[in-house]
Amino acid sequence: MNKPVYGDSDPIAALATPLSESALALIRTSGEGTLELLAKVFSRPKKLIIAPTGTVVHGWIVGLDENAAQQSLIDEVLVSVFKSPKSYTGEDSAEISCHGGIAAIKAVLAELKKAGFREALPGEFTFRAFMNGKLDLTRAESVMELVSAKTGRSRELAVQRLAGALEKEISSVKALLVDVLAGTEIYLDYSEDEFSTSTDDEIIGRLPERKLAEQAASRLKIISEHWQRERLFVEGALAVLTGRPNAGKSSLFNYLLREERSIVTETPATTRDWIEALIVVEDIPLRLADTAGLRELQLEKSQEADSKSCEAEQIGIKRSHELLEKADIILYLIDGSEGITAEDREFLSRYKEPPGSKPIIIIWNKVDLAPACNTEELGGDFIALSAKTGEGILALTCAVADQLKTSPSSKTPKEAALGPGTLRQKELLDLALLSLKEALTLADLGEPLDIISPLFRSAIEALGEITGDVSNADIFHTMFSRFCVGK
Amino acid sequence: MNKPVYGDSDPIAALATPLSESALALIRTSGEGTLELLAKVFSRPKKLIIAPTGTVVHGWIVGLDENAAQQSLIDEVLVSVFKSPKSYTGEDSAEISCHGGIAAIKAVLAELKKAGFREALPGEFTFRAFMNGKLDLTRAESVMELVSAKTGRSRELAVQRLAGALEKEISSVKALLVDVLAGTEIYLDYSEDEFSTSTDDEIIGRLPERKLAEQAASRLKIISEHWQRERLFVEGALAVLTGRPNAGKSSLFNYLLREERSIVTETPATTRDWIEALIVVEDIPLRLADTAGLRELQLEKSQEADSKSCEAEQIGIKRSHELLEKADIILYLIDGSEGITAEDREFLSRYKEPPGSKPIIIIWNKVDLAPACNTEELGGDFIALSAKTGEGILALTCAVADQLKTSPSSKTPKEAALGPGTLRQKELLDLALLSLKEALTLADLGEPLDIISPLFRSAIEALGEITGDVSNADIFHTMFSRFCVGK
Repeated sequence: MNKPVYGDSDPIAALATPLSESALALIRTSGEGTLELLAKVFSRPKKLIIAPTGTVVHGWIVGLDENAAQQSLIDEVLVSVFKSPKSYTGEDSAEISCHGGIAAIKAVLAELKKAGFREALPGEFTFRAFMNGKLDLTRAESVMELVSAKTGRSRELAVQRLAGALEKEISSVKALLVDVLAGTEIYLDYSEDEFSTSTDDEIIGRLPERKLAEQAASRLKIISEHWQRERLFVEGALAVLTGRPNAGKSSLFNYLLREERSIVTETPATTRDWIEALIVVEDIPLRLADTAGLRELQLEKSQEADSKSCEAEQIGIKRSHELLEKADIILYLIDGSEGITAEDREFLSRYKEPPGSKPIIIIWNKVDLAPACNTEELGGDFIALSAKTGEGILALTCAVADQLKTSPSSKTPKEAALGPGTLRQKELLDLALLSLKEALTLADLGEPLDIISPLFRSAIEALGEITGDVSNADIFHTMFSRFCVGK
Repeated sequence: MNKPVYGDSDPIAALATPLSESALALIRTSGEGTLELLAKVFSRPKKLIIAPTGTVVHGWIVGLDENAAQQSLIDEVLVSVFKSPKSYTGEDSAEISCHGGIAAIKAVLAELKKAGFREALPGEFTFRAFMNGKLDLTRAESVMELVSAKTGRSRELAVQRLAGALEKEISSVKALLVDVLAGTEIYLDYSEDEFSTSTDDEIIGRLPERKLAEQAASRLKIISEHWQRERLFVEGALAVLTGRPNAGKSSLFNYLLREERSIVTETPATTRDWIEALIVVEDIPLRLADTAGLRELQLEKSQEADSKSCEAEQIGIKRSHELLEKADIILYLIDGSEGITAEDREFLSRYKEPPGSKPIIIIWNKVDLAPACNTEELGGDFIALSAKTGEGILALTCAVADQLKTSPSSKTPKEAALGPGTLRQKELLDLALLSLKEALTLADLGEPLDIISPLFRSAIEALGEITGDVSNADIFHTMFSRFCVGK
């Protein structure tokens, strides 16, 4: 069999819901001959074939074994039928709602494969929808943003792009630039043919529709500036919890997990070097990493492997530094019952002082046992809390959110607008903006229009690539392959 | 607000797919006024209200804030409309297919709550389906079995019960017993009224339709005997991997995980004492536990807490024994490169010899480095393998499956039949069988029919409870509350 590629219209199938135990699961199918193939493994084939678009058919997925005396029952399902072009993909398609057991899902998928469906590639349903003109690229990408949105704010942003807010703004700016370009080119044509007697001064430095071009640049700038700000809410930040052994890192970690109803992002224990969980603090998805187990887990590994605990210790320390390097914010715990130790001072001088260092929040833990005193050297810049009683926890989460929001990269632009949803969009946007600025600068310098005009054309092309009007086939494959399967 | 109870017809809503990132998610709603309430948060309310049963409506879930200048968009969705009685529950209901992002799902559920839906109780959709006569209790319970089925075999069993195979057999046996009871009672009536002159001998010891009663007993016995056998495939078994440090427990664990495409059943690291994963061996779901980290993890914990490593060691050993107690089969690893040590001998004498001890498979690991020799004391009863090269792994999985299948509790009955799906069904079945056997014994002893007859009645009632014909309201609540939400 040939390797499947984006761009064919083969019948494809994929599980669109997670493969884990639940009441129901949804399997998507689409492509040429979808309903005929599905009918081969459906208990009511005729009913399925004649079903009008947008209707639901009840029945059983049955085993496709023509030698069997009796059809084996695979699962009782509801099939929603969508006929081309009235479907998500624009092709004939069907959505199968089956029982949400792992074995049930696998059995239905296996029958679909026998019937002739191939496994869908990541994002292939949305890819087909785009290719069939059902949505532009900003909407297509927003589908993936929406799926991965972890907080209300990031969901809102994705939904606005799904509803077309970004596409409309980009298309509207593009229309402005088309006007500018048209004006420029007419002027160029005239200047050559009719006004050849006019002085150079009249042409040089005179940009028709200059105001429109400026307006376009200013609107693109606003969109671009929303990027950084929105990233914080979309991608979140990494907070690393560290401090001396016994400072209470694990206790604070567990307290925050419990309080903030966190989603623990589990990685298999055998590959994990530290514990990480996702909590949400003021709409910011915060990946909280606890370095507590780092050294100990390394020790355990080495014990099983070769007992060179000294080497393991070294690895543990190295990993710890790597993690701190990646951190967007460091939460440093001081054991209040012991006070500030030499080890604490060493850490703080290493990570707090250097220019360009990242935000650190110093935490005086165990304040229930030991009130914060003799803390002059911290300059009052710390949070006293107890991971046992919960005292001070709210102050901590507020401080974390404040620090992240006021970092230079995420200041709020004043205009209420929507940023690009993906790095691809952001880069194309900045490319358009760059061309536009260059064009305006050249106009200021009095350069002739035939030098300036191509810059407007590049800006328009970049904006066209954002929405997918100007197509670049290579980029589509890369883009959609980042989607999840079933989307 | 009153606490919600099973048995009302309030509009309810629940997520029917897992709350984790995926392409799509399915939210179920059902109950009085479902479509009218849903219309309040739907972008095309009229279209939704007039939609015929079994059709799909495309639109947006919108924010229910009447003061807002503009409706906020929550998510783009497909709504499948089912009108009473043509729905799963028998009530008006709607299934909302929305984007599978965690924030998106939560936002849609929040709007449904605002619109007036309450969160469904576990199993409440299926409870309503049962109450409205859409399915009997064996089918209702099989829905839950199907969802939790982890292997092909357990799925097949659940599907057969979902299709009504168990209900039909139970009802058919019940019909036999109703005939027997009817015959007995007619005989009793006659004997009192008309045949009062007949001798006691004629009544005593004479059971009308005795053959039918024997046939019923034999059929119930066959169903009951399938229980143990099926349990192995449904509930699986616990295999505990143990042996001296360095024997290669973690390597073997990881090898099996990789080879058998296991599902790692993660518990948060902070509460885990050992690593456990689910692999499937010859259709048996095998929970594989690795005791490797047990001692080391305890040490780590104590280091954070109080450094009493000696106490932690004790706890670790205690946990290890508890785990071995629970095991259905023990996999004991010998480090082939070291040969059989005193510690190995001590373990094997403790766990292998005593009467009633559980199956142990002795594994000679690292056979790639050290061929199995000087193993006379193991009596040839071991498997040589290498967790590094994979040599001998297949022999191990075969041996595990054989041991589990031949254990006395899971011998295969010869008749091809279907067992009860739940302990509730099994207990009622055995109750019916017991009454029936008692009736037959009393008949043999020549006891009068008026003593025997009530036993048939009890058997019929027990069978009626299995399918839900004879209702016991208390039991329903307990039963359905074990379901997952959204089912």
